[in-house]
Amino acid sequence: MSIHPFDQALALTPTDVPGVYHGSTSAAYWNMVGPFGGITAAIALKSVLQHPALLGQPIALTVNFAGAIVAGAFTVSATPRRTNRSTQHWVIELTQIDTAGQVEVMLTGTAVTAVRRSTWNSDDVPLPAVPRPAGLPEEKPMTGVEWIHRYDMRFVEGAFPTEWKGQGDASLSQLWMRDAPGRCLDFCALASMADIFFPRVYLRRALRVPAGTVALTVYFHADAAQLTESGSGYLLGQARAQTFRNGFFDQNSQLWNEAGLLLATTNQIVYYKE
Amino acid sequence: MSIHPFDQALALTPTDVPGVYHGSTSAAYWNMVGPFGGITAAIALKSVLQHPALLGQPIALTVNFAGAIVAGAFTVSATPRRTNRSTQHWVIELTQIDTAGQVEVMLTGTAVTAVRRSTWNSDDVPLPAVPRPAGLPEEKPMTGVEWIHRYDMRFVEGAFPTEWKGQGDASLSQLWMRDAPGRCLDFCALASMADIFFPRVYLRRALRVPAGTVALTVYFHADAAQLTESGSGYLLGQARAQTFRNGFFDQNSQLWNEAGLLLATTNQIVYYKE
Repeated sequence: MSIHPFDQALALTPTDVPGVYHGSTSAAYWNMVGPFGGITAAIALKSVLQHPALLGQPIALTVNFAGAIVAGAFTVSATPRRTNRSTQHWVIELTQIDTAGQVEVMLTGTAVTAVRRSTWNSDDVPLPAVPRPAGLPEEKPMTGVEWIHRYDMRFVEGAFPTEWKGQGDASLSQLWMRDAPGRCLDFCALASMADIFFPRVYLRRALRVPAGTVALTVYFHADAAQLTESGSGYLLGQARAQTFRNGFFDQNSQLWNEAGLLLATTNQIVYYKE
Repeated sequence: MSIHPFDQALALTPTDVPGVYHGSTSAAYWNMVGPFGGITAAIALKSVLQHPALLGQPIALTVNFAGAIVAGAFTVSATPRRTNRSTQHWVIELTQIDTAGQVEVMLTGTAVTAVRRSTWNSDDVPLPAVPRPAGLPEEKPMTGVEWIHRYDMRFVEGAFPTEWKGQGDASLSQLWMRDAPGRCLDFCALASMADIFFPRVYLRRALRVPAGTVALTVYFHADAAQLTESGSGYLLGQARAQTFRNGFFDQNSQLWNEAGLLLATTNQIVYYKE
């Protein structure tokens, strides 16, 4: 049986120091000038989940993209800075050695894991009333980048512009998504899909403005069993910007499974050039 | 001239190590069993802004509340892990010495600062159509905690429940807020106000369920000049939860000034007991 490209990209080799791992970038998830941010977020989370002292399951993940990761080897570290009875607080860092032999910080981050228990529950933002994925065409939102071939994406609203004439007037996208080929959902896959939305400024302006994610936060609302129940089905992702201001805009997003369970909410702040 | 209690609470004394400061908790911002989370977030940001190597202004701040801060001395550190041409990436930690003499991590965090430049701009989430603060009564959302006396709060929607009979059906709050006594707005004050919203579970359920913020992320959309222009005027804050699930719920919030400029968007994930 062949290994799924997502698992290949997330393969981390332990070192003598607990929580410090060696890995290598994956050509299968390459973006324009570096890895797809989602795969990097997933690697950061994987370093936590692979730690021998892990307590519980992911609740929150924040990653900050500090430098342009280059193709090749990296080191990722996850350090539990505080372990309580039912929660654990992590600091994450990803580094590469530059051509001069210097250690360069490429990502900083934090995570919170926790042991969940049953409580009163309420999903207050229901799955939007949208057509089911089976009836929608598969679309690649852009060309020339490899990582988009690792996802089956079916847009309901706010697809990638086909004309770049400044005609944009809204930033909302809704799309069904799943790994391609199919793969049973887990926390790392969900972290990666939290970054699947192309920069809102492309849609809002219908102009090819250079842009890149600076920081990404994911809140995980589902537990491992609920992710497993989602199987290799589609997730509906929704993203929109609230404001674009002097070089940075935000993206506010939700991810539901086909059964309508809100699995994750996520926000990011994105650099744009003009 | 007396020093504003907010500035007293944020007073940090440099040590011999750049970016490492000593401080002390403030009784003026005390919550039920520790400091108001907003003041702790503001202290974390202050440690970055006071660093001699600071580049630019805050873009993103994430703080994770790892332990219950006790009254007294603390150490906060801000470390620039990566400095680029126009962005800088920070790691933040706040510690206290426990009764056994051990260093305990109370907060982990990250921040991104950047030099902004003028671009195309668009505020896509306008200030809601709400009554102006002058015509609304000042209300304290709860009693028995000191920090709420440091804010002038005027609720438009979703005030603190006056009956606790499980009658709640929505989680939206809208309120005007400003420092009391008045103080010219700055990044630290904005970070603090990002945590002003009481736990959404109180409102949604109208039950006094034990709850506390686990992690908070703030995106700063305004620059220092825009904050200064806001002066000591009111901000409109809006907060709502998207989902409550097995011990954790989220809060998604926006903060506008009276002129309608979206100054910050913020999210948090909150523990609740049942």
